[in-house]
Amino acid sequence: MERETYRVTFQPDGRSVFALRGTKLVEAAGQAGIILNQPCGGEGTCGKCRVEVQHNAPEPTPSDRRLLDPAKVADGWRLACQLTVTGDMVVSIPQETRFFEQIVLTEGKGRKYPFNPNLRKRYVTVAKATVEDQRSHLDRLKAAIGEDDVQAELPVVRALAGLIQDEERALTVVLEGDEIQWLEEADTTRSLWGVAFDIGTTTLVGTLMDLTDESHVGRQFVASRTNPQIHFGDDVVSRITYIGQNADGLDKLRKRLLGSLQEMILELCAQAGIEPEAIYEATAVGNTTMTHILLGVDPASIGRAPYVTVMRESVDVKAREAGLEINRNANLHVLPNIAGFVGSDTVAMILASGMARDEAVQIGIDIGTNGEVVIGNRDRLIACSCAAGPAFEGARIRYGMRATEGAISTVVINDGIEVGVIGGGRPSGICGSGLVDIVAELLDVGVIDPTGRIRDGADLPDGVPDAVRQAIVRFEGQPAVILVPEARSKVREPIMLTQRDIREVQLAKAAIQAGIQVIASEFGVRPDEVDRVLVAGGFGNFIRRSHAKRIGLLPPVHTDRIEYIGNAASSGAKIVLACRDCREEAEEISLATHYVELANRPDFQMYYMDAMMF
Amino acid sequence: MERETYRVTFQPDGRSVFALRGTKLVEAAGQAGIILNQPCGGEGTCGKCRVEVQHNAPEPTPSDRRLLDPAKVADGWRLACQLTVTGDMVVSIPQETRFFEQIVLTEGKGRKYPFNPNLRKRYVTVAKATVEDQRSHLDRLKAAIGEDDVQAELPVVRALAGLIQDEERALTVVLEGDEIQWLEEADTTRSLWGVAFDIGTTTLVGTLMDLTDESHVGRQFVASRTNPQIHFGDDVVSRITYIGQNADGLDKLRKRLLGSLQEMILELCAQAGIEPEAIYEATAVGNTTMTHILLGVDPASIGRAPYVTVMRESVDVKAREAGLEINRNANLHVLPNIAGFVGSDTVAMILASGMARDEAVQIGIDIGTNGEVVIGNRDRLIACSCAAGPAFEGARIRYGMRATEGAISTVVINDGIEVGVIGGGRPSGICGSGLVDIVAELLDVGVIDPTGRIRDGADLPDGVPDAVRQAIVRFEGQPAVILVPEARSKVREPIMLTQRDIREVQLAKAAIQAGIQVIASEFGVRPDEVDRVLVAGGFGNFIRRSHAKRIGLLPPVHTDRIEYIGNAASSGAKIVLACRDCREEAEEISLATHYVELANRPDFQMYYMDAMMF
Repeated sequence: MERETYRVTFQPDGRSVFALRGTKLVEAAGQAGIILNQPCGGEGTCGKCRVEVQHNAPEPTPSDRRLLDPAKVADGWRLACQLTVTGDMVVSIPQETRFFEQIVLTEGKGRKYPFNPNLRKRYVTVAKATVEDQRSHLDRLKAAIGEDDVQAELPVVRALAGLIQDEERALTVVLEGDEIQWLEEADTTRSLWGVAFDIGTTTLVGTLMDLTDESHVGRQFVASRTNPQIHFGDDVVSRITYIGQNADGLDKLRKRLLGSLQEMILELCAQAGIEPEAIYEATAVGNTTMTHILLGVDPASIGRAPYVTVMRESVDVKAREAGLEINRNANLHVLPNIAGFVGSDTVAMILASGMARDEAVQIGIDIGTNGEVVIGNRDRLIACSCAAGPAFEGARIRYGMRATEGAISTVVINDGIEVGVIGGGRPSGICGSGLVDIVAELLDVGVIDPTGRIRDGADLPDGVPDAVRQAIVRFEGQPAVILVPEARSKVREPIMLTQRDIREVQLAKAAIQAGIQVIASEFGVRPDEVDRVLVAGGFGNFIRRSHAKRIGLLPPVHTDRIEYIGNAASSGAKIVLACRDCREEAEEISLATHYVELANRPDFQMYYMDAMMF
Repeated sequence: MERETYRVTFQPDGRSVFALRGTKLVEAAGQAGIILNQPCGGEGTCGKCRVEVQHNAPEPTPSDRRLLDPAKVADGWRLACQLTVTGDMVVSIPQETRFFEQIVLTEGKGRKYPFNPNLRKRYVTVAKATVEDQRSHLDRLKAAIGEDDVQAELPVVRALAGLIQDEERALTVVLEGDEIQWLEEADTTRSLWGVAFDIGTTTLVGTLMDLTDESHVGRQFVASRTNPQIHFGDDVVSRITYIGQNADGLDKLRKRLLGSLQEMILELCAQAGIEPEAIYEATAVGNTTMTHILLGVDPASIGRAPYVTVMRESVDVKAREAGLEINRNANLHVLPNIAGFVGSDTVAMILASGMARDEAVQIGIDIGTNGEVVIGNRDRLIACSCAAGPAFEGARIRYGMRATEGAISTVVINDGIEVGVIGGGRPSGICGSGLVDIVAELLDVGVIDPTGRIRDGADLPDGVPDAVRQAIVRFEGQPAVILVPEARSKVREPIMLTQRDIREVQLAKAAIQAGIQVIASEFGVRPDEVDRVLVAGGFGNFIRRSHAKRIGLLPPVHTDRIEYIGNAASSGAKIVLACRDCREEAEEISLATHYVELANRPDFQMYYMDAMMF
């Protein structure tokens, strides 16, 4: 089969990705960071993933005809789960097709979360004080709110004294759980925003959400930044070391992080046309080290054996005390951790995916700088952290780079080696998904043998195309494969995959594969027996399932059982903004998930050695 | 009967008072601010009020012989409830005889409060973190504490990160309710102090209490100050007016108050030989205006009809946020109010007296600048505030003064007018108890008629001694009575009681008497039908029961049924330091006590007019 890459543009986002012919549109959208509804699991039976193809829509499938209105089909509407990329496309994705709605609002695979935000506003009328009605102002305010157990802290009482005279008075009450967070004179119930942060070692994502009511919850704005702590080390351990060696280290890293979060807040406010004062709550997830630093808690113990976290529980603190400048009374809710190397981002993944509610046994994988893996169902959950290293984020790879403009993100070997480049220009390196592609393709044609060695010369099997044979060179005494010659590279040297790069890929994927095997064995199943494999995280969204399986990064289940769930960490942070009860669920997940320390498992080394092979 | 005043000195306090011959020693001690145990109600049957008379102890009573060890009786030990003042005395009062023990620790008239302070210290050993025990540091600390629902706020978590390494670690945990308030490296469980404040309009009282364990709870230190807000007005209404008319008024009054409280803290610490950092909790009671000002809540609405309070509930706030410098994590608990003019001091009186737990129907009276009165039992409580005015505190009385050195505090008419002076020197004025005495005595001899008019000349009845007749002069066109002639006065003019002074006394006592009648009628009894009348407050401790009844200030019940309960407001503040559950009881009292606004009662004016008569 001839395989080519095409540009797919998503509207109204205006984001483009390069996708191989035959890629499912839901996957291409995932690559663009847009996750679609698929309550039926991509079976083409629920009709929830409808999108509009702007020009030259391909022939409708039987599912399209069955589930969509004929007039819509004629206008180019199709089901994204049945649609494959067959050329350059422009696709419009309506709000209701987007993933967030599914998580928060609709039914599907145990992912139903009611809209009941911790943060609410009520416009109430406080009764007049009279000689007959001698209740305190606060008691009359509580009665107007009409909810049991509502409490007010001192600053609110102080404000109340100025706001309520003895006459009848209408006020907007900002409620945070059972707490009166603030009082406003006008009816401001039409403005209620929350911000959800995903604090990754490498990337920060912030989402501003409209929490006024259920119908507005899809009104979201997104901003992202590189974590500025990167200047103090690529991974969490080097940052913990920096903190340990510098008296002001914790403060410095914390302030850097807060600075970027505040920039994102301003950017999000500009997008939405609001002031930071209109944001009444923040939530945050991240790996354990990141949330410790955010909260000013020394993460030293996470960095040394036995790698214990200082706090596991969720934390609620005034946002201004934590250092975030949003509404002066806003709360910051940080989700709970599981262990030193399995943080609230993993709790968020379990929460957002519905793993903990489902009968089906699923594996959830979040591949970032570390790989966190969870297996289980509603009865039992087991998690581990795999020291995969940053290979899939481009580090320790000779031409490795992050998945930004100029990165080779897809590789296809036909007669020669063809590459897809993010942004479409000349490439300057290879990002994680490109790395998975090239290794898988070279394995397929036999250039890499099962031990990971690059064959050359007489060792090469017969079917290797000439152009590929010619791309094999010697580099530092070992074979290497040139993906892009100097003439077409942006960095004025050929972009190549070295023998050493392949060893890094082997180490990384072996760590994840062995981790999966340990927790699957602990759970009592084989990895290929699970009902579903959920792939989360930025990197996860960009890799091709078949190739990831080919190199052993994902378990050998049928491709249909591998599902991309997008930035599940971010989804978790958003869910707890929109759903108060989900905080308790997150706490339960944090407590119930059994953590397996791989360093302590005799079987891990055995699995790890086996998993080094392709 | 010949009546003279004698000096009674109490040890080890070193306080002296002047008491009339025949005064019960428990009353004399009450005048000195020392309240004794009387679980049997002064019947001489329980033996709890034992004291040691230093020299020339009077003959033992049958009760003394029955209840005390013969050797002790020989050493001068007597029951204070059976002992009367018959000459100058020096009496030693042991700790176990003092009232606080009774309130907090022992059984008696429904006043049993268990020792279970909100504040506790535990010296615990936190288990070593291992690869097998991956619980967070905080989870291991919680397990070491071994109590359910223990929580920690962020500053504690931050401190924990520095204190606990992975090794086994012993720590002192300071617990405030279910909250870990702080962690200390050494075993500091032998030092745990709380401070209880009674914030009166006129007087501030602070008590430092040792909360380490039940056996130390009697270790208390007391300090007092005049409320410095007096410069802004004698009563609450003038202070509210000052706040309303000055933009910085609330802040200024609050800071003045905090300044004095802080001075008292330092004085108490000096007495106890501790640092303010060793005080881990503060409690406070006061009238509603005082606690509003303390907490920085504008009391404006209390000062205007319908006199509604901003907050009724108890308040918990970090002491440092409230402006008190004790332990940096200490809590300040302010007891709840009932209404704008019935504050947490009244809740404290109800709590300390056990009124709300007793089957007997009791009236509680706290006469300060205002008079707060409560009637009821465990089934029902009704309260009101009587605008008695400050006459009994010396204000609006020509020679009126507070009960300090130089004040005439007792008056006896035999052949002439004899006065007892606080401190024993020349008098400079009359305090509240002296005022009650002189009015009652003049009523008895017929110098004052039942309408309150001073008789003179031919109007005087026959039995008036000559010396008294000669003391009646004309002043501003009306009769007046000279108590102390110019020659023996400190102020270089005769100290007299004017017709106008008597009118002030009539207005004040009428307000209280009518208030009692309204709430008694609301309760469905006559004031003289109640089982007991409890008299609280500084002034209350100094008045003679029979005289107070004579002028109509106290209901006409048998004198045995009138009981002094000392500074019950202060006792309430101390009780909630030592007994966590009592905070809930205070909240229940605050909610359950029905407030009657006298201004709104048609029957009040009628009772008030009647009560103007003697």
